Amino acid sequence: MDPAANGLGEFERIARFLAPLTAGAPGALGLTDDAALLGEGRVVTVDAIVEGVHFLPADPPDLVARKLLRVNLSDIAAMGAEPESYLLAMALPSRCGDRWIEGFATGLAADQPLFGVTLIGGDSTATPGPITLSVTMIGRARPPGPVLRSGATPGDIIYVSGTIGDGALGLLAATGRLPGLATAAASFLEDRYRLPQPRTALGPALAGVATAMIDVSDGLVADLSHICETSGVGGVIRADALPLSDAASEVLAEAPSLIETVLTGGDDYELLFTAPAAAGDAVARLAAAGRTPVAAIGRIVRGGGVVVVDRDGCPLPLARMGYRHG
Amino acid sequence: MDPAANGLGEFERIARFLAPLTAGAPGALGLTDDAALLGEGRVVTVDAIVEGVHFLPADPPDLVARKLLRVNLSDIAAMGAEPESYLLAMALPSRCGDRWIEGFATGLAADQPLFGVTLIGGDSTATPGPITLSVTMIGRARPPGPVLRSGATPGDIIYVSGTIGDGALGLLAATGRLPGLATAAASFLEDRYRLPQPRTALGPALAGVATAMIDVSDGLVADLSHICETSGVGGVIRADALPLSDAASEVLAEAPSLIETVLTGGDDYELLFTAPAAAGDAVARLAAAGRTPVAAIGRIVRGGGVVVVDRDGCPLPLARMGYRHG
Repeated sequence: MDPAANGLGEFERIARFLAPLTAGAPGALGLTDDAALLGEGRVVTVDAIVEGVHFLPADPPDLVARKLLRVNLSDIAAMGAEPESYLLAMALPSRCGDRWIEGFATGLAADQPLFGVTLIGGDSTATPGPITLSVTMIGRARPPGPVLRSGATPGDIIYVSGTIGDGALGLLAATGRLPGLATAAASFLEDRYRLPQPRTALGPALAGVATAMIDVSDGLVADLSHICETSGVGGVIRADALPLSDAASEVLAEAPSLIETVLTGGDDYELLFTAPAAAGDAVARLAAAGRTPVAAIGRIVRGGGVVVVDRDGCPLPLARMGYRHG
Repeated sequence: MDPAANGLGEFERIARFLAPLTAGAPGALGLTDDAALLGEGRVVTVDAIVEGVHFLPADPPDLVARKLLRVNLSDIAAMGAEPESYLLAMALPSRCGDRWIEGFATGLAADQPLFGVTLIGGDSTATPGPITLSVTMIGRARPPGPVLRSGATPGDIIYVSGTIGDGALGLLAATGRLPGLATAAASFLEDRYRLPQPRTALGPALAGVATAMIDVSDGLVADLSHICETSGVGGVIRADALPLSDAASEVLAEAPSLIETVLTGGDDYELLFTAPAAAGDAVARLAAAGRTPVAAIGRIVRGGGVVVVDRDGCPLPLARMGYRHG
C-alpha cells in the first residue's frame, strides 16, 4: 500500500474519522467494542461480508448465509448477550437468481432455530460488483449487563474457548497451501474456516464472571491487543498453553513456523476473555455446563502491549508480534 | 432479464424466500413496512447504497454520506418516529484512501446535528468491487406508537408532502437527458436527486393522525401500492392534484409524457400518507407547524390497486400503471 494514498490502517481510520462521530453516545463505546449498547441490556452490532474477501465465489449460498449470521452471533456472544433478531442488507449481482436466494434463505432457516434468532427487516439492492451482505444483529444481556472489552485488570487470567488457529489454517488448506496435510485434517480445518461455531451458550453465561471479552476474528494477538488497549493493560500469552486441534497440531508438527498463523490469523470466532484468578472455579463450571472447552492461556499485566512467550518465558520472535492499532 | 434465470422480482423474492423467516416475530411486520418494531416504541431499519447504482462515482464522499443517512432518516420518519442512532457498514475499494473517508465522515458530521442522530457502531471491510454502504438506523415513536403501512381505510384522504418527481427528473438532468432545460431548473432538480430532504419533523408529528404512511422511494404509484396491498384497499390519485416544483412543471410543459416519470420514478423521499377526511384540519395544522407543504392528492377506495385519473376522472394510460408486487 502506498502510505500517501491509503495512509492509515482500518483501526486508525475508525479512531480518527469515525469515533469522533459518537460524541454524546456512551453506548457507542467509542467504536471499540464488539457491539454498541442500546440501553435496557440491549446490544446491537453490524458485520459485512464480501464475495472474494470473506467467502469464496464457489461457496454454496446456504453456507454463506450461515457464516454471515454466525460472525454476528459471535459478536453478540462476546458481549455476554443472547441474540434476539437481525436485519439483512443484500447487494446482489444479477447472476444471483431465484435459486441463489432460495439457497441463501435455506441457510438462514437452518441456523435461526439453532441460535434463537429471527429475521425482522432488511434491504435488497442490485450491484455491478461482488455479492456484499451485511447483518445487523440485536441481542440482550442478562443482568449484570453486557461484558465490555475495557474491564481487564492486572492479575486477571486470560482464557480462550475451543481451539485456536483452525480458521486461518483452514483457509490455507482450502486454497491448496497445505499440500502435505492428510485429507481428514484438511477437511476438519476447512470446515472450521467455512462455518464458524459461535459460542452463544458460553458468552451469556460469562456475564458477571468475565471482566473483559472479545471474539477472535482479527487473530488471537490482535484481539487480545484490543482488550489490552481498551483496558489500559498488557497481556502475556504462553504459547505452550494454546489450545490446538489435532489437525492444527499435525500442521505445526510439519511446519512449526505456522505458529505465527495460529496466533495472528483470525477467523476462529472463539471467545477470548479475562477473569480474576479467584473466578477460576466459576469459569471451569460454566465451561463444563456449556460443554465448551476453555483454556487458560496467559495473564493480564500492568503496562501495555501483548507478548507471546515460550515455556521458558522467552518472547517469541514473531514478525507480526508488534501488531498495533490506534 | 431472463425469467428462467432471474425469475421473480425483488418484492416477490422477499415475500417468497425471506418473509417466512420472520415467523414468530410480529415486529418484523412481514418485511412489508419501512422499519421493524423492536418494542417500547423503538423502530429499526437498514438501507444499502451502491456506487454506480444509488450514487455516481464522481459524487463527493460527503454528499454520499449525507444521502445514505437521509434515505434511512426518511424510513424512520415514515414510521412516525424520531431518529436516535445508527450503525454504518462500509465495503470500500482500496482506491478510497484517507481523504475519501475523511470527506465521508465530514458529511456524517454535517448531518448528525441537523437530524439529532449519532453514530454508535459499524464495520469496515475491503472490497474488490464498487463502494457499498449500509446504515442501520434506530428511532423511537412517540405514543400512540409507530405509523404502519397497513392502516389505510376506504374514505381516507391520500396526502403527500413537498413536491413529487423532482428526484427522478433530477437523475435525468444529472445524466444529460433533459438537454433543453434552463440551468437553474436543472440545478434545482439535480440537488433534489443528490441530497434528499427527509421529512423528519412532519413524520413524527403525524403519529396518531395518519392511518398509514410510507416514504416515496420506489415511486409514488409503487409506494401507494405498498400501502394499498398491506392495507387491503385501493387508491385513486388525481394527476391534476400532484404537487410539482416549478422546475418539474417546466419539464412537463416541454415533455408532457414525463408525467410517467414523475408518477413512477422514485427517489423523492417525501412522505405519502393517509388520514380520515375528518382529520383534514389536523393535517393542515401539522403541516403549517412543521413548515412542510402537504397536498391532498386522492382517496383510498374499496378493492385493490392504484389508478391515476385526469381531471375528468379518466384513468391515465401509463405503461407502468399496472405496477404490482407480490
